[in-house]
Amino acid sequence: MKTFIPGRILPLFILISCSQPPEVAPEVPEIKLVSTFDVALDRDTQSKLESQFDAFLNPQNLDDWMKHMSSKPHHVGSPWSKQNAEFIAEKFEQWGFQTEIETFEVLMPFPKIRKLELVAPDQISLELKEPTLAEDATSGIRENLLPGFNAFSADGNVTAELVYVNYGIPGDYEELARMGIEVKGKIVLARYGGSWRGIKPKVAYEHGAIGCIIFSDPKDDGYGRGDVYPKGPFRMDQGVQRGSVLDMPMYPGDPLTPGYGAKKDVKRLAIADAPTIMKIPVLPISYGDALPLLKALEGPVAPVKWRGGLPVTYHIGPGPAKVHLQLEFDWELRTAYNPVAKLKGSIYPDEWIMRGNHHDGWAQGASDPLSGMVSLMEEARAIGELVKTGWRPKRTLVYAGWDAEEPALLGSTEWVEYHRDEIQGKMVVYINTDGTGVGFLGVGGSHSLEKLVNEVSSDVQDPVQDVTLQERVRARLRVNGNRDAEREDLRIYPMGSGSDYTAFIHHAGVPALNLGFGGESSGGSYHSIFDSYDHYKRFNDGDYAYGTTLAKVNGRLVLRLSEADILPFRFVNMAENIGTFIESNKKLAESVTKKTEKRNKLLDQNAFTIAGNPKKTYLPPKRLSDVQDFDFSPLEAAHKRLEASAWNYEKALAGIKKRVLTAEKKIEVNQLLREVEQSMTRAEGLPRRDWFKNMIYAPGFYTGYGVKTLPGIREGLEERNWDETHFYIIEVAKALDRASGKINSAANILKAN
Amino acid sequence: MKTFIPGRILPLFILISCSQPPEVAPEVPEIKLVSTFDVALDRDTQSKLESQFDAFLNPQNLDDWMKHMSSKPHHVGSPWSKQNAEFIAEKFEQWGFQTEIETFEVLMPFPKIRKLELVAPDQISLELKEPTLAEDATSGIRENLLPGFNAFSADGNVTAELVYVNYGIPGDYEELARMGIEVKGKIVLARYGGSWRGIKPKVAYEHGAIGCIIFSDPKDDGYGRGDVYPKGPFRMDQGVQRGSVLDMPMYPGDPLTPGYGAKKDVKRLAIADAPTIMKIPVLPISYGDALPLLKALEGPVAPVKWRGGLPVTYHIGPGPAKVHLQLEFDWELRTAYNPVAKLKGSIYPDEWIMRGNHHDGWAQGASDPLSGMVSLMEEARAIGELVKTGWRPKRTLVYAGWDAEEPALLGSTEWVEYHRDEIQGKMVVYINTDGTGVGFLGVGGSHSLEKLVNEVSSDVQDPVQDVTLQERVRARLRVNGNRDAEREDLRIYPMGSGSDYTAFIHHAGVPALNLGFGGESSGGSYHSIFDSYDHYKRFNDGDYAYGTTLAKVNGRLVLRLSEADILPFRFVNMAENIGTFIESNKKLAESVTKKTEKRNKLLDQNAFTIAGNPKKTYLPPKRLSDVQDFDFSPLEAAHKRLEASAWNYEKALAGIKKRVLTAEKKIEVNQLLREVEQSMTRAEGLPRRDWFKNMIYAPGFYTGYGVKTLPGIREGLEERNWDETHFYIIEVAKALDRASGKINSAANILKAN
Repeated sequence: MKTFIPGRILPLFILISCSQPPEVAPEVPEIKLVSTFDVALDRDTQSKLESQFDAFLNPQNLDDWMKHMSSKPHHVGSPWSKQNAEFIAEKFEQWGFQTEIETFEVLMPFPKIRKLELVAPDQISLELKEPTLAEDATSGIRENLLPGFNAFSADGNVTAELVYVNYGIPGDYEELARMGIEVKGKIVLARYGGSWRGIKPKVAYEHGAIGCIIFSDPKDDGYGRGDVYPKGPFRMDQGVQRGSVLDMPMYPGDPLTPGYGAKKDVKRLAIADAPTIMKIPVLPISYGDALPLLKALEGPVAPVKWRGGLPVTYHIGPGPAKVHLQLEFDWELRTAYNPVAKLKGSIYPDEWIMRGNHHDGWAQGASDPLSGMVSLMEEARAIGELVKTGWRPKRTLVYAGWDAEEPALLGSTEWVEYHRDEIQGKMVVYINTDGTGVGFLGVGGSHSLEKLVNEVSSDVQDPVQDVTLQERVRARLRVNGNRDAEREDLRIYPMGSGSDYTAFIHHAGVPALNLGFGGESSGGSYHSIFDSYDHYKRFNDGDYAYGTTLAKVNGRLVLRLSEADILPFRFVNMAENIGTFIESNKKLAESVTKKTEKRNKLLDQNAFTIAGNPKKTYLPPKRLSDVQDFDFSPLEAAHKRLEASAWNYEKALAGIKKRVLTAEKKIEVNQLLREVEQSMTRAEGLPRRDWFKNMIYAPGFYTGYGVKTLPGIREGLEERNWDETHFYIIEVAKALDRASGKINSAANILKAN
Repeated sequence: MKTFIPGRILPLFILISCSQPPEVAPEVPEIKLVSTFDVALDRDTQSKLESQFDAFLNPQNLDDWMKHMSSKPHHVGSPWSKQNAEFIAEKFEQWGFQTEIETFEVLMPFPKIRKLELVAPDQISLELKEPTLAEDATSGIRENLLPGFNAFSADGNVTAELVYVNYGIPGDYEELARMGIEVKGKIVLARYGGSWRGIKPKVAYEHGAIGCIIFSDPKDDGYGRGDVYPKGPFRMDQGVQRGSVLDMPMYPGDPLTPGYGAKKDVKRLAIADAPTIMKIPVLPISYGDALPLLKALEGPVAPVKWRGGLPVTYHIGPGPAKVHLQLEFDWELRTAYNPVAKLKGSIYPDEWIMRGNHHDGWAQGASDPLSGMVSLMEEARAIGELVKTGWRPKRTLVYAGWDAEEPALLGSTEWVEYHRDEIQGKMVVYINTDGTGVGFLGVGGSHSLEKLVNEVSSDVQDPVQDVTLQERVRARLRVNGNRDAEREDLRIYPMGSGSDYTAFIHHAGVPALNLGFGGESSGGSYHSIFDSYDHYKRFNDGDYAYGTTLAKVNGRLVLRLSEADILPFRFVNMAENIGTFIESNKKLAESVTKKTEKRNKLLDQNAFTIAGNPKKTYLPPKRLSDVQDFDFSPLEAAHKRLEASAWNYEKALAGIKKRVLTAEKKIEVNQLLREVEQSMTRAEGLPRRDWFKNMIYAPGFYTGYGVKTLPGIREGLEERNWDETHFYIIEVAKALDRASGKINSAANILKAN
């Protein structure tokens, strides 16, 4: 599904200064971090390999495959999704990979009834239809097309007054409370944006709403951003954003098989007992359909920041607009087809480097996900070509095309859950891609891989500007005045959720990365029928220059991870990033305290009432409970130990001659290195969601895709559960100490040789 | 015309801590500032007088006069403007004031031809008409109505491609340059906002444009803010904002008689030689009329911040939209009628306290200006009632109704120019009002009056909330987290331009104030035919609760200024405020330096090009000339002397018993006190505009209404004229030293007695 942030460009990786060891590790002498080439790879051999790899890449293949695979709707359960899975598997096989299509039987409800009408003050039945456009060859396809709907909405048949709730996130309900407006028994109208969509019905339900309508506002996602399709790339008035509303921040994947693979005969939860299925009916609509609803609302005028791009005054309601919303789904199990291809490693066959991209789309799905899928395929083909020359990877390479990502990351999650033990035993890294575009390389992931990413991004040229990918990103950071712009390594962003890396990094604790290009290919085709080949060719990476470059980047990552005798995990960058997470949590604690004191003082002064407009209802906010003092010192001490271990490892690494290490010792060191990420997980997981086990990163419980760093601590502060914050300060400290232990052990082996 | 800032509430006065003397004046002991009552007024007598005054106030009068005076269009030159002037004069006379109507013959062009049509790609003639509404009794009047136009636009008959220039301020042209777009030979389309309207054609002309169209964007001034008229108070799709585009930041008033009164037989400039008349045709239009123009533009999509509330993608052009704009004016002299009423002072007849409000409006002008005018009238009537009880003011009170404020502050400016010598000899304070509304008291003016304003605002109750006016403003500052919220006195804002105080404070150097209520009465009737009695009654201060309260505030100011034996000018607040102006100019110098270094470094790094999207023209910005070092120390030293003099005066004031001072000494002290403001003027004025003589405040040369503090210094920095900044640092220091001299002289007289 990829992370869609209207009006925002992808977060991008930025610099940390690694040549200066942090002050907190005085026992470690200042040393220059060495490159992977100096300690683990032979530069000439590797460069030659990578040049050969590059030479095999051919953009025409991406175009051919894109055109073929996007020619029909290919959501999970559709005939074309199965066809695409078979097409991909066939190719992998043809390129020399040992391939199978692994299937899971997952719950995937298709809509049977979708009805939305305004019943007061006027009667208007909404169209809920995307049009056929002459300029878009596949827009007329209706066979096997899923119309605009939200996967895992509840069935429902409700009629109630409407309330406009802005983005429908928790802060919006605080504002509604101040306006004296409740949504209990009402249907809420929320606009897309401000959070992952599934948060909107979840929070609406928590506040007593009985239905939820989500519309694409033209300010965020329509003519307010640029010319609309087919004149330009942006969302036209009848374009609808499909998407899942399963409560994935609780657990993604099949809602009926939490924590285990959804194989045919396993025991399943009853649908009524599945906690992640939304409890109220939810429907996405276009801004064309939203207009009469907004026009019919009265009540207070929406606050300035709540106003969108439709040519009306946005009112809150409730009513007099009243709507009837009827939704019914078939609640069937459907087969997800995951083509998985392996190329066995010649030296370390039990160490796996995995690449993945989903192949299912909401409709034609050209940009999302096929743009990333065809890049992955070309990368795999070029690896296959290398094999034809006689080369074999030292480690086992695994390439996958995931099905059913869109409704709930189903294909990848079930695969990880089903193979968890083997994955945790063997997988070194999972590298994800998804829809990709034009512009700047964006990289998120485990910070132990930050240095490797930078080594690669400074070795690959931008296809348009005559600089490396890293230099291009750095130039933008400079122009934007980013304070990390002059750091040696560009920072990679910590990952929340929104694509298939989720189960790997958050559930299994496997180091993961997510990569793609963006920033110059914005548009409004996301999850609509207009995410088509025609749209992609005209407005996105039509010549596949960036798709091919992405293959160069991922190819290098795979080849260096595969060939390095000592895996290129590096912990100085990791420790520095974790230090920033601790710092930002401390700042959050301070700001929560300040906010609490400020608000309560204003209440004592009666300032809200005195400053209030007596003609408008705007109640003072609630008094806040006192914030406790938090002792971050155990965590800070653990962090110092982590920094020391990172520098200890660097010193050991710089000192070795790689050839004096025996194969057994290498395996032992590498085992320890890839266990570092896993050592920072906790079996009991996070509060209210034990599926999420990583103590360093998680998607936000109330943001959905957006990351929370040190989530146990942070969400305790945000949700004012002080006990959780106290508890997780200690738990994160323990996690860091476990990581330090692994790193020091690895260093000790290096030093002893 | 009042300052109209769409989407913003009026600036409000905020606190300074006066109980703590600044560190820089160590020679002065810490003392508590005494109140005016303790040193210059008998509290019991004064309180009784003010209570009597309050008791005379009757909101019904405001309603009666408002209804009568707003019943027809009453711009300068209209029959009803003369009628209103006579009505006001009659009332003043009736209330015991010696009244005359003083006239000036001022240039005031009325439109003869107004034509605007899109000629390509389609042919559309625009309506340029405001509709008659059943809900608004005066909206159907067409007799003597001035249609939508900009006063002092040039005649013109031009056809050219259109370019959308956002607000049309200098920064917007920098952005256009980066997009590679020039306006030379084009007609620009600018939206209202971001500056005073006259800046838009002035800057367009400087860049070579041959015409300028200004529209009200619904985001800033229409349905984007709330329900439109007649359902709600905001601007409807055909509502037009009239207004002047005379280059008033150069000099306001009659363009043909700069610096002297426009009496009948004086020598006048030829129209062609008048530097303040706009050089290109300018026309304001509604957003209904702007829509087809914006729709017809192509070229780059406007930057995010340039996009308004119309349901189209905002493009820049140039073209293919091409427009034909034809404007012709009659360029006639018209008579401005200023009713001026005097009540002779019993003790100090040659010390004048003046009140003024304009009476001309663009059409029916209910809110702007009559809401303030009727409050002033009721205040004058209550003063008249006091006189009937046998009371006489100690000083001479002067009440004026200005004509022709809307086109160029004509009535007040010509009056000040004509009477300048007498004004400078006699006037103590000029207190201005203009359109006023509902909510929070806003006060701007000379900071020597800040303490007096706070004494008054903490003595008058808010008519709705059960707190004083000062407490209400303070509550809002608290809620907004303003750092001055807990200061003892609320700060008053420094004044730029936009109403009739301009000639007093900026040209004659008379201490001045400007007061009004706002913040809870926003709407979109400004300068349209819908600024009517009906609109005001429904959506503004319909019961005149705030209009009557404004009379209480101004009545107190007048009565305390009139009765105080020692005039209530206080200089500790003034010095503290000037200190903040110096500080902000120093910060500006730093930020100009930083911005210059940053930009030039980015150019050296080629960062703009590398980070740029190769598919879009977005050129690097221009390299900036090096910034010089500025030596603020002479100014800071002068400021320390000013602070010391202020504390010296406070000490002297606190020590005196007022009755030991002879009448002659009082006159001598008061003479010195009111000369302080004048001493901070400079005969040669500001660069490029010698009419503006105040060294502390001026309207911005490129903002129009918005104030520039220490304008010689600040605009030198903003316009990168370093020599000006060097020069005015010294000139402002001299001005402060002149003020210190006056203040110390006054203190010495007090001490000697």
